[in-house]
Amino acid sequence: MSSEKTNQSWGGRFSEPVDAFVARFTASVDFDQRLYKHDIMGSLAHAKMLTKVGVLTAEECQAITDGLHAILQEIEAGEFEWRVDLEDVHMNIEARLTDRIGITGKKLHTGRSRNDQVATDIRLWLRDEIDAILAEITRLQEGLLGLAEAEADTIMPGFTHLQTAQPVTFGHHLMAWFEMLSRDYERLVDCRKRTNRMPLGSAALAGTTYPIDRTITCELLGFEAISGNSLDGVSDRDFAIEFCSAASLAMMHLSRFSEELVMWASAQFRFIDLPDRFCTGSSIMPQKKNPDVPELVRGKSGRVFGALMGLLTLMKGQPLAYNKDNQEDKEPLFDAADTLRDSLRAFADMVPAIKPKREFMREAAIRGFSTATDLADYLVGKGLPFRDCHEIVGLAVRYGVEQEKDLAEMSLDELRQFSDKITDDVFEVLTLEGSVNARNHIGGTAPAQVRQAVQRGRKLLSQRN
Amino acid sequence: MSSEKTNQSWGGRFSEPVDAFVARFTASVDFDQRLYKHDIMGSLAHAKMLTKVGVLTAEECQAITDGLHAILQEIEAGEFEWRVDLEDVHMNIEARLTDRIGITGKKLHTGRSRNDQVATDIRLWLRDEIDAILAEITRLQEGLLGLAEAEADTIMPGFTHLQTAQPVTFGHHLMAWFEMLSRDYERLVDCRKRTNRMPLGSAALAGTTYPIDRTITCELLGFEAISGNSLDGVSDRDFAIEFCSAASLAMMHLSRFSEELVMWASAQFRFIDLPDRFCTGSSIMPQKKNPDVPELVRGKSGRVFGALMGLLTLMKGQPLAYNKDNQEDKEPLFDAADTLRDSLRAFADMVPAIKPKREFMREAAIRGFSTATDLADYLVGKGLPFRDCHEIVGLAVRYGVEQEKDLAEMSLDELRQFSDKITDDVFEVLTLEGSVNARNHIGGTAPAQVRQAVQRGRKLLSQRN
Amino acid sequence: MSSEKTNQSWGGRFSEPVDAFVARFTASVDFDQRLYKHDIMGSLAHAKMLTKVGVLTAEECQAITDGLHAILQEIEAGEFEWRVDLEDVHMNIEARLTDRIGITGKKLHTGRSRNDQVATDIRLWLRDEIDAILAEITRLQEGLLGLAEAEADTIMPGFTHLQTAQPVTFGHHLMAWFEMLSRDYERLVDCRKRTNRMPLGSAALAGTTYPIDRTITCELLGFEAISGNSLDGVSDRDFAIEFCSAASLAMMHLSRFSEELVMWASAQFRFIDLPDRFCTGSSIMPQKKNPDVPELVRGKSGRVFGALMGLLTLMKGQPLAYNKDNQEDKEPLFDAADTLRDSLRAFADMVPAIKPKREFMREAAIRGFSTATDLADYLVGKGLPFRDCHEIVGLAVRYGVEQEKDLAEMSLDELRQFSDKITDDVFEVLTLEGSVNARNHIGGTAPAQVRQAVQRGRKLLSQRN
Amino acid sequence: MSSEKTNQSWGGRFSEPVDAFVARFTASVDFDQRLYKHDIMGSLAHAKMLTKVGVLTAEECQAITDGLHAILQEIEAGEFEWRVDLEDVHMNIEARLTDRIGITGKKLHTGRSRNDQVATDIRLWLRDEIDAILAEITRLQEGLLGLAEAEADTIMPGFTHLQTAQPVTFGHHLMAWFEMLSRDYERLVDCRKRTNRMPLGSAALAGTTYPIDRTITCELLGFEAISGNSLDGVSDRDFAIEFCSAASLAMMHLSRFSEELVMWASAQFRFIDLPDRFCTGSSIMPQKKNPDVPELVRGKSGRVFGALMGLLTLMKGQPLAYNKDNQEDKEPLFDAADTLRDSLRAFADMVPAIKPKREFMREAAIRGFSTATDLADYLVGKGLPFRDCHEIVGLAVRYGVEQEKDLAEMSLDELRQFSDKITDDVFEVLTLEGSVNARNHIGGTAPAQVRQAVQRGRKLLSQRN
Repeated sequence: MSSEKTNQSWGGRFSEPVDAFVARFTASVDFDQRLYKHDIMGSLAHAKMLTKVGVLTAEECQAITDGLHAILQEIEAGEFEWRVDLEDVHMNIEARLTDRIGITGKKLHTGRSRNDQVATDIRLWLRDEIDAILAEITRLQEGLLGLAEAEADTIMPGFTHLQTAQPVTFGHHLMAWFEMLSRDYERLVDCRKRTNRMPLGSAALAGTTYPIDRTITCELLGFEAISGNSLDGVSDRDFAIEFCSAASLAMMHLSRFSEELVMWASAQFRFIDLPDRFCTGSSIMPQKKNPDVPELVRGKSGRVFGALMGLLTLMKGQPLAYNKDNQEDKEPLFDAADTLRDSLRAFADMVPAIKPKREFMREAAIRGFSTATDLADYLVGKGLPFRDCHEIVGLAVRYGVEQEKDLAEMSLDELRQFSDKITDDVFEVLTLEGSVNARNHIGGTAPAQVRQAVQRGRKLLSQRN
Repeated sequence: MSSEKTNQSWGGRFSEPVDAFVARFTASVDFDQRLYKHDIMGSLAHAKMLTKVGVLTAEECQAITDGLHAILQEIEAGEFEWRVDLEDVHMNIEARLTDRIGITGKKLHTGRSRNDQVATDIRLWLRDEIDAILAEITRLQEGLLGLAEAEADTIMPGFTHLQTAQPVTFGHHLMAWFEMLSRDYERLVDCRKRTNRMPLGSAALAGTTYPIDRTITCELLGFEAISGNSLDGVSDRDFAIEFCSAASLAMMHLSRFSEELVMWASAQFRFIDLPDRFCTGSSIMPQKKNPDVPELVRGKSGRVFGALMGLLTLMKGQPLAYNKDNQEDKEPLFDAADTLRDSLRAFADMVPAIKPKREFMREAAIRGFSTATDLADYLVGKGLPFRDCHEIVGLAVRYGVEQEKDLAEMSLDELRQFSDKITDDVFEVLTLEGSVNARNHIGGTAPAQVRQAVQRGRKLLSQRN
Repeated sequence: MSSEKTNQSWGGRFSEPVDAFVARFTASVDFDQRLYKHDIMGSLAHAKMLTKVGVLTAEECQAITDGLHAILQEIEAGEFEWRVDLEDVHMNIEARLTDRIGITGKKLHTGRSRNDQVATDIRLWLRDEIDAILAEITRLQEGLLGLAEAEADTIMPGFTHLQTAQPVTFGHHLMAWFEMLSRDYERLVDCRKRTNRMPLGSAALAGTTYPIDRTITCELLGFEAISGNSLDGVSDRDFAIEFCSAASLAMMHLSRFSEELVMWASAQFRFIDLPDRFCTGSSIMPQKKNPDVPELVRGKSGRVFGALMGLLTLMKGQPLAYNKDNQEDKEPLFDAADTLRDSLRAFADMVPAIKPKREFMREAAIRGFSTATDLADYLVGKGLPFRDCHEIVGLAVRYGVEQEKDLAEMSLDELRQFSDKITDDVFEVLTLEGSVNARNHIGGTAPAQVRQAVQRGRKLLSQRN
Repeated sequence: MSSEKTNQSWGGRFSEPVDAFVARFTASVDFDQRLYKHDIMGSLAHAKMLTKVGVLTAEECQAITDGLHAILQEIEAGEFEWRVDLEDVHMNIEARLTDRIGITGKKLHTGRSRNDQVATDIRLWLRDEIDAILAEITRLQEGLLGLAEAEADTIMPGFTHLQTAQPVTFGHHLMAWFEMLSRDYERLVDCRKRTNRMPLGSAALAGTTYPIDRTITCELLGFEAISGNSLDGVSDRDFAIEFCSAASLAMMHLSRFSEELVMWASAQFRFIDLPDRFCTGSSIMPQKKNPDVPELVRGKSGRVFGALMGLLTLMKGQPLAYNKDNQEDKEPLFDAADTLRDSLRAFADMVPAIKPKREFMREAAIRGFSTATDLADYLVGKGLPFRDCHEIVGLAVRYGVEQEKDLAEMSLDELRQFSDKITDDVFEVLTLEGSVNARNHIGGTAPAQVRQAVQRGRKLLSQRN
């Protein structure tokens, strides 16, 4: 019965309607309706191009344009009725267009296919998402610069293997995070340039017989380039995978920050305090104040990794060109973008509000033989090979562990047990300030270097737009 | 301001309300409301136990029970107002309970924490999901048995490396799928037993000071065992990961079936026809009839693998006991269960409707030197070592490729070029029927074996419940 | 030239030798030689079966058996020359057998194929690996039981969100790890039963025309069952994936333990000391003593997750039956098994040597309002609803944070500011011992419960074999 | 005993030697010895810089330089003894240097740490690998261009959903692969620029107290930039993850090509023939010629995805700065680089040798109503809306399926049953040549467009270096 099939755009060849469960199982409108704005944007450009090349008349173009704008308003006003039997966002909008403007609405699909249409929509959508994410990265980096500058002189223990290693400045530590985010920014910019290429005009898989001019749509839609091969144009989802990969790296960084924040906020570290508004409590333990935001962000990294793996798996064995498998590209991509954007937003809000507890940081830096390397370097300055100095200081530390004395707490005589090259100028190198100030080269932890790094960072951000 | 905090269950210790975005970012009610039925089920059992041990009075228990039943009805009638400011399904229901029955509602949470509560809810939910999935597997297996029996004599080419290898029966091929699903069933049964253990009573992390009796709740809720350690009880998500792993294997199997169905439905294979109701068409190419269901299922395997990876990543670095990261366990688990269940359902509906095109299968089996191994085995029967027979037949095939003649099409003289052991009884072993019937041992492709395998399968399914 | 092709077992049909790089690229002998013992074990059983069914004579069987034993010795003595041009472990051994015993060697391959041979080998190999891994798990669990028993009374802070939550006993914490390992053990036992099924007799894909008796080889090789379908038999790698999945869960657990050990060994926690023999130092910082073993194990979890992901991806789109893709199953499986086994071994060695620093644990437990829940429970005992008690204690904690006083340090008057239900019996519930002893039910943290859990654990281990 | 510890570079502080198994478990020299050349390269530059800034004398520098060159020769001659007790490549080389040149050798490590040393080594190594991979991509693309140009007029069916969609040219299909590889090239170039940044000078984590000049080493080693933060410098492994991500995408592409090659080489498609030298046979089926190279490459994609997953997991929860976990970065990275490079090499060798079977391609294109869209477009040209034309042609196809007639085989009268707009000029649009030639715009499948795409491709490759 034709009436049973009219809802689909492809009914003629079929002798029975799609099974009800199958219709629901294969429909995408529940999630791809999110693309409505970019779908309409693409259709407006397509109609204008078809008009310029003579496929549509000016009147037809005007009717389509007016109709699409009206539909956009309907959707944004929440008045649009999305129908699962129309499968996807594209057919929902096109069917509504024909409802509104009659037979002319059916002409909009001339010279294109849903295959190139959806590929165009996702790219337009992702381009906007990347821009929003880049803005959040910049906002978070600004927060880091402010805090790093304020804490350029604050001394904390630097860790390797989570063991006290050498004193560093808190500003220096924060600038390490800044560096990671700068790479995330770069990667997303690189990804954006490969996202911003236009598949529209690839039609179903082979191009179209209509006299389309792809340079017109390219310019109207702000794409940087036209995809060079129609088979590739409809089936390429590299940009989605590359985005998920860049997002995974960014989430990995946020997860690392989170790991540190959670530890620092513990009763054992007490390096920072997070304002109450970024924390939640316990339904059973009245004293709890939990660092939920970093914990949750740390947890959310997994879902973005999962999206990346899912998409790689999805594409891995597909022959050309479009296969239905590709419909599964959207939900992981949407989820990865949302997760990254929200996590960055939460961090950008939270970072400037972090309250360092400087006295606990300093106290921790003093403990743990953190200036042992400085003592070894001091002995090198007295003419010994580094490896021998390392051995000497190692023995001194062993003595200190047994005696429960830090190096700076030993007397000169005690220190000289291990090398008679040690004289009373040694105590200066064993101070925290002496230690950090001595690491005064590009990338070093000296406060002066941190301030320079902040200046470089400010310049970098200022050049972004 | 106390009024700003009243919505949360933990306000006392906090000096400012949670940031609005953070509240939304950290809330789980949008997705965990799905657990409402199991949350209420757990609360009913908990209240009954508290009453038996004397913590609640019978009247209090009755009020709570009535209140929870009323709330269940509200939710199922769509009349319940879910509030993000109440964070999660648990606090939404508890707050509503207190609205309805007053101060007694607040006593329900005695002796438990959200940490053990949510762990209990997810296990109860997953137990039901596994049961539903097991039923779908059985239904799909029944469909396979029927089709395999009907096609026990249908001959098709068996492939290795997608090259024609040896003739097999279509029924035999279908029974390979049956075997895979039997393992999936087993794995899910194993997973179910580890899911069906009760963390309730672990409280926040250390157990509770109330005189609870966990054996009571265990029995009321149908759990098979009580978790043996409270720290583990609140933080264990092994069951979710194990489920996603079993689901990944099952989806991998469905993806393999799909790969074959898609190829078989192509114009190049033409081995099967899928009814129109399991296919969709193209918005641009009027002749297309696409095997959407298997393609989509193939594509959906990626998202389940992604869920598995996400959950493993999630848990990997967490210290004991509960951390907020764990909130991220639900969405991947829900999605994996839904995806597997729907994919199985679609296959269980579709498989009995597959229409084999026997003539094309047979024709394909005849081509491609599929009985070359039979010829080698024939020569072994004449006393030659297998390796030498292989070489002889290899040369005959090379001659056949050049002459465009299959083995059965060569004359006796032609065949005897390669070995004078060949006599005119050779032509019998070169038939398709001769070939498949000869593989007549457990697991072999002979029609007789397929029928036995179907009988074994029927028995297996009949023993399931 | 035939001489160019003689090395391969399949030369007859080919007109040119394999490209040299391709030969190297496609050969597996570099890694699959590891299967030599299980390959020979399978061949011995196969030869014996062929003899029983009359395909080989007793003399031939004896020659083959002697030859294979001699080759086994050659390999174990390091005197066997592995040849890449012979592709894999199977052809290397078979070629050597023919070298040694002549034409009879060529008869061994009768009625089987490399497809069922390799599937059999891997299963035999993995069965042994699982047994070795199970033994390491048991050894590690024994270490945990010993330590847990010794530390049943040691009090440390229990954490949620890495914030001090409630006091727990160190023994209780260790028993949480024990529980995780018990589940790992169970999962591997379940995996073993699905591994221990015999594909031998599936031949290339369809079974064989020889009158094989698969029950004979099954019994000789100690398999529990015979694979029921030849197409499935040669292509099934579920057992490898299931193993990697169980291994991923186990490594995830070890990674969680590691995370805790690393934190506990830090200068901030100081909960434990690891003996020097499990640590390494720094080439530059003389004071460093790094917990390398847990760090490395934590890092190694990623490679096992990667192996799991790789194998799922590998199988996902393959049509039946064997495809060359499957050759890629071995390296990830080998690596996952080695990684898990070594990591367990390192932990089983290290755990009994962990030195708890009880005074630091106790001191940490006292701080952080860890008995706040006990105070709330106390108030419940005085007749208030739990939710209200929570609010009262929350306010007391807030006061304590401001005054830098723990609950136990407040005077009765101070406490009564928040509720006049508080009387001087309150101070007992605020002690650490009071708190842990009160959680005295199955799974609770009370020392008595820990001792019972240790007894249950001892019983469990004793029943294993 | 000091003698037990002398092998390690950090013995002083330790009271017992490392456990033998732990030493083996934590050593990396078995796999990181592969970095020897880049380790020496870095040391040579470091020594020269130390000399320029006055830390080493010219004589010391000369002795170190000579010693390192001699060691390089020893290693490349296979005469170097790698010692597990020396942990890693760095200490092996340094210890050997001190053996050779005495105490001066111990001075080389001044102002650096293994943390910045290994990070520098891996980057130098990966930079070279990327260059080699880029060269293989270019070589493969050259092969594609040659084949695409030769097959610009060859017509085959274009598929969507593996159903015949529209005729395309084989050259066009090949150029889709070319496009994918161009993106892979771009991504690796982007990755290279982030790889080519120098961490040397970060020392252990905080920089060094020696007056190093990082711009000197940067220039000597050909790095493009200096890492801006020492904590980040020693712990950043983004470049490795980004490489594995780009490699995963490239392997995904090769896997897609492989999927098509395997299908095309099947008896059902017969679109191509692969030369014998890229194939292997079967040990049991004498007629088999298996497309091993594409199958294996398809299978190998999984291991690279696994490496990516492993590395993301590895880094995800690490606090700053270096942790031992990071040692696990190397094996997945090495494996991913080797796999990609070898797979590209195999494809670059094989692609030019692909033999298209044009007659089978053409025959397949004729079947399957591949010109149905052309008929719909024809009707649009007669003034009907596209959607109505689609319906008309759909009905004609349904008739054709029932009558087993392709569109071009129907009479004008039969066609006019569906629309009286059809006149006898219709048969021209139903030809394969008519169909492909009509898609004559950028990215379309017309032979003229393929030739232009080849020209663009040639230009692109010529600009690469």
